[in-house]
Amino acid sequence: MTPNMENRGNEATPVGELKRLVRRFVEERDWDQFHTPKDLAIGLSVEAAELLEHFRFRSDEEMEDRLRDEDRRTDIGHELADVLYFVLLMSANLGYDVSTILRDKLELSARRYPVDRARGVNLKYTELNRDSGESY
Amino acid sequence: MTPNMENRGNEATPVGELKRLVRRFVEERDWDQFHTPKDLAIGLSVEAAELLEHFRFRSDEEMEDRLRDEDRRTDIGHELADVLYFVLLMSANLGYDVSTILRDKLELSARRYPVDRARGVNLKYTELNRDSGESY
Amino acid sequence: MTPNMENRGNEATPVGELKRLVRRFVEERDWDQFHTPKDLAIGLSVEAAELLEHFRFRSDEEMEDRLRDEDRRTDIGHELADVLYFVLLMSANLGYDVSTILRDKLELSARRYPVDRARGVNLKYTELNRDSGESY
Amino acid sequence: MTPNMENRGNEATPVGELKRLVRRFVEERDWDQFHTPKDLAIGLSVEAAELLEHFRFRSDEEMEDRLRDEDRRTDIGHELADVLYFVLLMSANLGYDVSTILRDKLELSARRYPVDRARGVNLKYTELNRDSGESY
Repeated sequence: MTPNMENRGNEATPVGELKRLVRRFVEERDWDQFHTPKDLAIGLSVEAAELLEHFRFRSDEEMEDRLRDEDRRTDIGHELADVLYFVLLMSANLGYDVSTILRDKLELSARRYPVDRARGVNLKYTELNRDSGESY
Repeated sequence: MTPNMENRGNEATPVGELKRLVRRFVEERDWDQFHTPKDLAIGLSVEAAELLEHFRFRSDEEMEDRLRDEDRRTDIGHELADVLYFVLLMSANLGYDVSTILRDKLELSARRYPVDRARGVNLKYTELNRDSGESY
Repeated sequence: MTPNMENRGNEATPVGELKRLVRRFVEERDWDQFHTPKDLAIGLSVEAAELLEHFRFRSDEEMEDRLRDEDRRTDIGHELADVLYFVLLMSANLGYDVSTILRDKLELSARRYPVDRARGVNLKYTELNRDSGESY
Repeated sequence: MTPNMENRGNEATPVGELKRLVRRFVEERDWDQFHTPKDLAIGLSVEAAELLEHFRFRSDEEMEDRLRDEDRRTDIGHELADVLYFVLLMSANLGYDVSTILRDKLELSARRYPVDRARGVNLKYTELNRDSGESY
């Protein structure tokens, strides 16, 4: 394996390539017929909840232990991957560019949560900016 | 803008770069103190549900119209971006390589949903493979 | 079984009795130690998603069939019961009177969705009342 | 108001009466046309997530304070009521008796989590009973 290919297995992978992997998985199985946008949005929520279930009734210390246990760590990674699968599939099917929507949203969030006001504060922007007269 | 930079705004963006954008956003605001793994998993579920809300009580036809309306389309894209934000943040904080967990999970799913058996079928793998004697 | 007891198995059951059943189940297992309000809210979301999963990738016709199949119908009922379990447990633990919060919320919703305006319309109240100058 | 009526505003209210309140609210607005079972299940998940959002990024101590603040306490109660609204509506529309499904599920859960084994333990039944040779 060339160093370049090795990179491909990690952070250097273009997000578009991940999208294509997901699309190919679906096309090979002829599953588009079941994938209305509503059903994909359901899929995303269901997978997010399966990830969340790992944390239910566990203290932060207990979760730290579990995240060090190899089997559980793998399971949790798989659940996270399932959520990403639906993010990529939904983006592909609805024609969103993943990178663009993320940057656009970060820009909007940066206006809603200006550094000088939001730093070290866990309030929602509607509360954070209540007195500023600004709304987004 | 150079062609290279233009590419960066789209599918060619390495997934690691998206991760860094999200980490920087959080660090500038000193928000790590609020981000236990459990709270990030909650964040993911909450954002997935906000996306899902756009589809509630709407027929498929109505959603098609809404996805053509520019403002709603932007709103829905933002919700999708919020989910991705938490996927990337959680991956970064818990030390998962996004590309690796996606590929690993696709491999597992390919075993659970073999093409010859799963093609055109909307059953869960536990039902799909009920008679095959295999379990994953 | 006396007629009175028979009634108890159905709609005549006081909601407070259902609450006590749930509390007893928890107390017998000494589970309060795991039930922070946050974890109960997580439990509610996880169970709601397990119910939702039954509907993913299914057409309305397919769901009608499934809801007539006795085993699936029982499974779906159990998921619904799991959600109710957490609603009752959370109400008990946080000191909410179930009947009162439902009535209070229905009153608020009646103001947000006045019959003459909301009848046959599937808009959210923020859109429904956009031109009325009222906000709730 | 007679003592009996006063009771009706609280725990003594039959669960069937709460169901009828919800059905009436829907019928007055002619909303059944939007309420496929799938959309009601979506509604349930969305409302559960809105409740969950109140807990995101908050420590247990912070939540205790918030639950003592009258306005926030009311808001959280309303979110809990929204979840109950969909539990009751779904039960009514799909023909489930609320009290019966709760009791049936508690019986199943009692077998999955026998007191002597589950007491003070926060494991899922699939883990709890791994060595017992029993499965439910």
